Amino acid sequence: MIRVGVIGVGTVGTSVVKILEENSDIIEARAGSKIIVKTGAVRSLEKARGLSIPLTTDPYDIVNDPEIDIVVELMGGAEAPYAVVKQALQNGKAVVTANKAMLAYHRYELQDFAGDLPFEFEASVAGGIPIINALRDGLSANHIESIVGIMNGTCNYMLSKMMHEGVAFDAILKEAQALGYAEADPTFDIGGFDAAHKLLILASIAYGIDAKPEDILIEGIEAVTQDDIYFAKEFGYALKLLAIAKRDGDEVELRVHAALIDANEMIAKIDGVMNGISVVGDKVGETLYYGPGAGGDATASAVIANIIDIARSGRKSRPMLGFDRPLEHGLRLKAKEAIRSKYYLRLKVVDEPGVLAQISKIFGEHTISIAAMLQNSIDSRYANLLFSTHTAHERDIQKVLLELEGLHFVAAKPVMIRIV
Amino acid sequence: MIRVGVIGVGTVGTSVVKILEENSDIIEARAGSKIIVKTGAVRSLEKARGLSIPLTTDPYDIVNDPEIDIVVELMGGAEAPYAVVKQALQNGKAVVTANKAMLAYHRYELQDFAGDLPFEFEASVAGGIPIINALRDGLSANHIESIVGIMNGTCNYMLSKMMHEGVAFDAILKEAQALGYAEADPTFDIGGFDAAHKLLILASIAYGIDAKPEDILIEGIEAVTQDDIYFAKEFGYALKLLAIAKRDGDEVELRVHAALIDANEMIAKIDGVMNGISVVGDKVGETLYYGPGAGGDATASAVIANIIDIARSGRKSRPMLGFDRPLEHGLRLKAKEAIRSKYYLRLKVVDEPGVLAQISKIFGEHTISIAAMLQNSIDSRYANLLFSTHTAHERDIQKVLLELEGLHFVAAKPVMIRIV
Repeated sequence: MIRVGVIGVGTVGTSVVKILEENSDIIEARAGSKIIVKTGAVRSLEKARGLSIPLTTDPYDIVNDPEIDIVVELMGGAEAPYAVVKQALQNGKAVVTANKAMLAYHRYELQDFAGDLPFEFEASVAGGIPIINALRDGLSANHIESIVGIMNGTCNYMLSKMMHEGVAFDAILKEAQALGYAEADPTFDIGGFDAAHKLLILASIAYGIDAKPEDILIEGIEAVTQDDIYFAKEFGYALKLLAIAKRDGDEVELRVHAALIDANEMIAKIDGVMNGISVVGDKVGETLYYGPGAGGDATASAVIANIIDIARSGRKSRPMLGFDRPLEHGLRLKAKEAIRSKYYLRLKVVDEPGVLAQISKIFGEHTISIAAMLQNSIDSRYANLLFSTHTAHERDIQKVLLELEGLHFVAAKPVMIRIV
Repeated sequence: MIRVGVIGVGTVGTSVVKILEENSDIIEARAGSKIIVKTGAVRSLEKARGLSIPLTTDPYDIVNDPEIDIVVELMGGAEAPYAVVKQALQNGKAVVTANKAMLAYHRYELQDFAGDLPFEFEASVAGGIPIINALRDGLSANHIESIVGIMNGTCNYMLSKMMHEGVAFDAILKEAQALGYAEADPTFDIGGFDAAHKLLILASIAYGIDAKPEDILIEGIEAVTQDDIYFAKEFGYALKLLAIAKRDGDEVELRVHAALIDANEMIAKIDGVMNGISVVGDKVGETLYYGPGAGGDATASAVIANIIDIARSGRKSRPMLGFDRPLEHGLRLKAKEAIRSKYYLRLKVVDEPGVLAQISKIFGEHTISIAAMLQNSIDSRYANLLFSTHTAHERDIQKVLLELEGLHFVAAKPVMIRIV
């Protein structure tokens, strides 16, 4: 029998406890032994949610319980769970976590700390999709060329609605909040931070790159309007929040931002709250993984898969991130300014003669060439100019944006979306 | 150091040998030790393909070599490799195979035979897509409700071309053969047998169901014409060769056939030689896996992932199919005749009065109701009648087909495609 302690019995934790009971037949057959939840830790005992497991309010009751084999950490936050999990490892316990924030900051220390002890984290990226499993174990023969993921269901839900139903950003945000797809403070999701945490975890497995959220380019979808959707439709693009890891020689780009992407790509076809991740390996080519990125049961499915794996394989495990010596020598994070991309720009301008000439001159001075332009009249006074460019350097487009913002006929902060 | 013997150094075997060299940096970092190919076995030494590894023509030189840790079986066929692999296990070696035919017939005996020895077979289903990994390990907390897969690239290439470019079946088959996507004798692919072997392997992991190819419904795409594509387009369907495992109470349906499927489903969007598999779990919901289903390097990517996994985890392993006691009690294969589906029928008829009335009468007598009908004139004498039905029993539709074939004005064997 394997005894589990669940720290944090919220939505996901409750699903973990329930599914371990409801599906105990197949779980026992696959794990090779019975798995029971010995204790759950909650912040307040009133939040017991009608579960029949013994509860405590002190995570260390679980961590220090000699009868518990596997500690499941579902607390949220980064520093408090880090301390708890380290103590669990010190006590020789296997750990399963869904905590992307903790891993975004502490994954390498945790890998060192875990050593031979099983440390699994499938649920930390893309909920129910077994992407860690695929990337770490299924594609292990490959140098990874790129990872392009839709890893935030809130953003994808909102952008899909904007694209297919013409709804305005603010209206759809309210709807998403009412449906429980978006938090009261939606910044973590729509600002790209949630996707960035997940990207950093995947980038470690693929490249061994050590970076923290503050080291990489993170932008959200707050500035997207129906004007941008109009441009996307005209030119055959989908509009997505993408998390991208891309190898370029000895450098790896890591970035999260709204992106226009060819509507024929498989990843562009993923709509609604669903997540999807395209991984290109040097030998396998493109593979793609699709499924629910959130939700109690879907996330618990990943947590329990890890528990079964640990029950099955015993206490000795592969290294947490899938390697135990430098993965590739000399690989380093590319500076944000050195990223190259095609760009889309939206400029609200006063509708007067000579505007386009002055704008074109600025592009030209930074050797950025315009690929396409659309003009969208707002009223008798203002118009939106929608541009796409050929491939340019991030540092050059940023200079162009600054200069454009300073022009007297530019009536609002210019909006830029990268074209992938 | 881990020593591998490769039995069968054809397209995939050559890729295995080359990738183990080319990507030795990451493979060693992930495997935790160096992996080398000690010996390769070929049918004829002239087929050495310029590889620098020692070769033999006797597979048992590898199987009986005490220095070899892992036997990679890439021979093809079912019975000869079965004998070779059993001997390897008897000698205490880990086994990696890409051989779907052997597994379609002998997977349960092999699981018993392997016991605690690692026996991996990721490459046997859907080439480079880590679907075994996902289904066996990633979704292990779930009862699987359905598996719907495009698992034959030849068929998907042909049907995609017929759909998007209007090419006739015979022309596209010739083109596929010229491109190397189809064999000189294409029966194994276009008759559905290749997909059926793969389906049986997945169904064992998902349900513990023991069935052989002859036990299940297997049909191919040979009868598909542009008439069927016309109907599909009119009603918003894609046309695919699908391999389907579906749970219905205590029964599991297993079937491979051409199918019309709602064009908005993710699986319907998979075109060309690519494979894709949708898996619905009772807890996770729908997940989908997409990628290259064939090709030397893509398949070798899966073979080497298994080698790395074995090198990493040592000699004790999870059971081959992912469970070591009955997975679900009382689950059994559903009889072919008991399958229920919606159906599409194409009838070539003499264009004369009263035809539709007689046909409708036959449908009615078997309590099958028609959902839609299209008439497509062939020439002054003949027309094609294209019907879709509401849900009906397979046994009833088969009776209808027989009766329709006997009508004097029916000018060719009726064609039936299931609607999924």
